[in-house]
Amino acid sequence: LFERLTIVGAGLIGSSIARAARQQNVATAVIVVDNDDKVVDRVKELGFASQATTDIKDGVTDSDLVILCVPVGACKSVAKTMKNALKRGAIVSDVGSVKCSVVEQVSPYLPEGVHFVPAHPVAGTEHSGPDAGFPSLFNNRWCILTPSADANQAIVEKMRSFWEALGSNVETMEAQHHDLVLAITSHVPHLIAYNIVATAADLEKVTQSEVIKFSAGGFRDFTRIAASDPTMWRDVFLHNKEAVLEMLGRFNEDISVLTRAIRVGDGDALFDLFTRTRSIRRNIISHGQETDEPDFGRKR
Amino acid sequence: LFERLTIVGAGLIGSSIARAARQQNVATAVIVVDNDDKVVDRVKELGFASQATTDIKDGVTDSDLVILCVPVGACKSVAKTMKNALKRGAIVSDVGSVKCSVVEQVSPYLPEGVHFVPAHPVAGTEHSGPDAGFPSLFNNRWCILTPSADANQAIVEKMRSFWEALGSNVETMEAQHHDLVLAITSHVPHLIAYNIVATAADLEKVTQSEVIKFSAGGFRDFTRIAASDPTMWRDVFLHNKEAVLEMLGRFNEDISVLTRAIRVGDGDALFDLFTRTRSIRRNIISHGQETDEPDFGRKR
Repeated sequence: LFERLTIVGAGLIGSSIARAARQQNVATAVIVVDNDDKVVDRVKELGFASQATTDIKDGVTDSDLVILCVPVGACKSVAKTMKNALKRGAIVSDVGSVKCSVVEQVSPYLPEGVHFVPAHPVAGTEHSGPDAGFPSLFNNRWCILTPSADANQAIVEKMRSFWEALGSNVETMEAQHHDLVLAITSHVPHLIAYNIVATAADLEKVTQSEVIKFSAGGFRDFTRIAASDPTMWRDVFLHNKEAVLEMLGRFNEDISVLTRAIRVGDGDALFDLFTRTRSIRRNIISHGQETDEPDFGRKR
Repeated sequence: LFERLTIVGAGLIGSSIARAARQQNVATAVIVVDNDDKVVDRVKELGFASQATTDIKDGVTDSDLVILCVPVGACKSVAKTMKNALKRGAIVSDVGSVKCSVVEQVSPYLPEGVHFVPAHPVAGTEHSGPDAGFPSLFNNRWCILTPSADANQAIVEKMRSFWEALGSNVETMEAQHHDLVLAITSHVPHLIAYNIVATAADLEKVTQSEVIKFSAGGFRDFTRIAASDPTMWRDVFLHNKEAVLEMLGRFNEDISVLTRAIRVGDGDALFDLFTRTRSIRRNIISHGQETDEPDFGRKR
């Protein structure tokens, strides 16, 4: 599909794309750029890139596809630095969990003749860094493209083929709608997971040792996503403020109703809600987005 | 350890105890009682009980240990029904996720000479019913005993041995403290999981199909515990109202602070909190209460 693919940022997602691109032969050369010397050294040791460098201009020169795999808040600075080194006809893309902000940050710096197709592969684990990546990360996961209304359709189709080659299902939507959908399916879930873990850690009547011992009652599930990369998630909340606050408002409204039901002892309201939520999981499982093994198939 | 063990209620927990008791040879006979004909028939087919019946009085007669494995709200009615059939010297226990309420419900009905040792094995999956149980459910999980201050110590030790034989670690604490600890490690986590799943299902700007497709962004994690048994969880909230409302108050306080940090763009506050929560998971893993595989070791 591409002669030269450049990945900027060798974290979980960037290193997974590099590994998958190599495995699926979608690029002749895979160049990895990272601003951290140690990460570049590690990428060389791991051997999943044709070339690894800290020099972003050098890394993107002559590339057909450049994918920004950096925290959302770093996109502007990367775009500014690389803009004059991009070749005419190159495609720039990204993997950010927020799309409107990335479009605002990157678009002004892209030279005439460079195409921009924002993307978000909805996949990941709680681990970070170049060692955490693996080539099957995108298998059967969805990748959302948010091209602008006037984007070149052939270029958008090429990006679709790229993600399909990596095993993904691809959907396109407007950046603004993406940010709203992800606020409820990803950002607010992360926020409440981070929040409950912090609440539990700060109690004075319950010790941290008790929280840890008895975490199998449900709490431990939340610690997984609350162990995700802090820089990435700080940037998500700073850059998708409006949609996150809207969805958080909904969550709070609903929890007030539930709180009231508990306070007044309305068992029927609780039972009805707890029954309704069961079917959502069954749908997620039947759509291939979740394992049907009990307890996520956790090893005991 | 026991001649006759009677399990009242053949759900996930009851059927797992029966299977484990048989496997570990901790009782000569394992009698299973359930008020549902179909469940009793299914228990007979599955073959993990020496005897299965809908007649509770018959089921507890001559038993040395009777364990109530019914929803918390059903304990009083079970205690009333069985009280005259209990043999002198018998131990009555339970597996309820709430302890103060169970003590209040059961104690008044226990005849002189019958011992009561409330228990809560902190273990489970999102599945329910006699088919969902398995004998290793309690392996390396904690079981909390909440005997009263004047309980017979030899009897408490016998219950400790019972749970240790089933693979559990055992801790004793006061019922009231148990209810507070579990409110934060189990009950409030379930409540916010049920709540976010319902919030997502009810949005008009985001379709349910979008919620399902993009659930791998974090949302799907919450659907697991939000698929737990509705009757059991209705009863937990109705019977641990005070502690749940207290812990929910803390959660809400903390989420208000986080919401403010997002609104004013306080990236440092977000970053600090997201860093702090990471270490809790590492502790849970090192204490053997969670897998160290990324993504719970989910099959992709």
